Amino acid sequence: MTGLSRVYPPDRVVLREVGLRDGLQMVQRHPSTAAKAEWLRRESDAGVRHFEVGSFLPANAMPQFADVREIIDICQNLNVHSAALALNDRGAADAVQTPVGEIVTVVSATEEHSQANARRSRKEAIALVGRTVELASGSETSPLVQVGISMAFGCSIAGEVDPNEVVRIAAECADAGADVIGLADTVGFAGPDQVKDLVERVQNELGDVVLSIHLHDTRGMGVANASAALDAGIRVIDGSLAGLGGCPFAPGATGNVVFEDLIYLCERKGFATGIDLERLMSAREVAASEMPDEHLFGALPRAGAPRQINWHAQQTTG
Amino acid sequence: MTGLSRVYPPDRVVLREVGLRDGLQMVQRHPSTAAKAEWLRRESDAGVRHFEVGSFLPANAMPQFADVREIIDICQNLNVHSAALALNDRGAADAVQTPVGEIVTVVSATEEHSQANARRSRKEAIALVGRTVELASGSETSPLVQVGISMAFGCSIAGEVDPNEVVRIAAECADAGADVIGLADTVGFAGPDQVKDLVERVQNELGDVVLSIHLHDTRGMGVANASAALDAGIRVIDGSLAGLGGCPFAPGATGNVVFEDLIYLCERKGFATGIDLERLMSAREVAASEMPDEHLFGALPRAGAPRQINWHAQQTTG
Repeated sequence: MTGLSRVYPPDRVVLREVGLRDGLQMVQRHPSTAAKAEWLRRESDAGVRHFEVGSFLPANAMPQFADVREIIDICQNLNVHSAALALNDRGAADAVQTPVGEIVTVVSATEEHSQANARRSRKEAIALVGRTVELASGSETSPLVQVGISMAFGCSIAGEVDPNEVVRIAAECADAGADVIGLADTVGFAGPDQVKDLVERVQNELGDVVLSIHLHDTRGMGVANASAALDAGIRVIDGSLAGLGGCPFAPGATGNVVFEDLIYLCERKGFATGIDLERLMSAREVAASEMPDEHLFGALPRAGAPRQINWHAQQTTG
Repeated sequence: MTGLSRVYPPDRVVLREVGLRDGLQMVQRHPSTAAKAEWLRRESDAGVRHFEVGSFLPANAMPQFADVREIIDICQNLNVHSAALALNDRGAADAVQTPVGEIVTVVSATEEHSQANARRSRKEAIALVGRTVELASGSETSPLVQVGISMAFGCSIAGEVDPNEVVRIAAECADAGADVIGLADTVGFAGPDQVKDLVERVQNELGDVVLSIHLHDTRGMGVANASAALDAGIRVIDGSLAGLGGCPFAPGATGNVVFEDLIYLCERKGFATGIDLERLMSAREVAASEMPDEHLFGALPRAGAPRQINWHAQQTTG
């Protein structure tokens, strides 16, 4: 069994909790390192095993990620899988000096967004994927490399995105050696049929690559889109605790799809998550006390899981 | 073309706005008749054509529905389809004295809930369906009759619900002459695969009966369940403006699936709704000013529809 299939077993659903990365991207006040440690400990106690925890950036660029190395060490001590962003060569070089389990890099689906957001072409971004893969595979810890394709379902600058372009970019990233390809609905434009269509197209082209999906709930479609992605065969889904993570392109919008609600979705669809919803609630307390200005979303935390029915998946794989 | 296929054309999606009925079920303070009229006028201007507007009950039982006759008259003047609950013989007799377009009656999926909620057996409730159909078809205005099967996806008292029982009840209601069978996730337990399964079972048994679905967003699955229902062939979906309508069985829970978000879902799935989201927003202002204590839900009202893409369905039928 490769490291890849240990981290992302093909017969199981994996929920990645990205609150400590994408959830903190826009916040004014961010949790202390100790609070992040407690957040991770409580989620890990609840059964969460996959986290995206920060970004390798100069500390003055985004102070909320200045402690990324410590957080990765904490993940290692908790024996959970850690992932972190590295958006340039320097970041990737820094990442491989740590025990991070997965390096996440980003390629925009559109040239317009690539230039505006990262000041480079998509071609340059894909070349960086290749260099990151080389660095990672040549390093002592051999972290996985995921490429998130941002704006894959519509772009805040270019508008409609041709799914064939996304398939082409995904194929080039896979050729460059990416272990995981992530399809990101960065600004929450997608509908479920579009999700199903794109996932199927990418799977048809790429075969057995590990595909993940990253959804924002900006227009309330997050859970529906996750359901469609599961129907199409996706087994790796990002979410953030309490739906943290506003979007700079959509003021007032919610952030990522709510992690807690994804658990209910998966279990009701027959995919065991291994996560205890009740225990997970205690992690929200950390977010609430550390970031009192952030709205915490989520239907399950509000209503609770039904006690009258057995809503858990009946098998452990699906 | 029958009245039924004029009201619910089989090749179109119909969204029923039930805010003035289910949305007011639990509120402390309710809109004045004039405000309800304005609510209907604004929604009608936005293209909404189907409303559930109250219940035929003694005025002292639920004062928020005391003006149901006036509201039905207003619907008639606006040339929109009105529906109202009638939960006993007296209510049905009252209903057929008005120009209401559709009488909605309810049968519980479980004997336990039927006894606890309506103090009658399911058999008695189905007998009432038959009498209501007789009254309706013998009346001057011949309103349609819909039977909502409450707790169809799980019961707050009995727990799990056998889908075969729901199919059996649906068949008996159709035999009793119901024009529309509604499947209601009254307490928000359902997941999308369960919705798809039950809709397909009922369709297989009942053939060409008009099926509708009534979803509560208590556990965040509302839009995902609506998407699954559409995939399974449902073309009539209930929602309430701003997701109004708390559930007595789930304190703190949200109410019905958000009407505004359903519009985005349908359009993104290729089903034209004929509803202008921007104009619909002005109806929320009525709800906000008349019921200042109610939380108004909805992602589309918060984030707005995307301006960068054409998110409308490309055809007018689907």
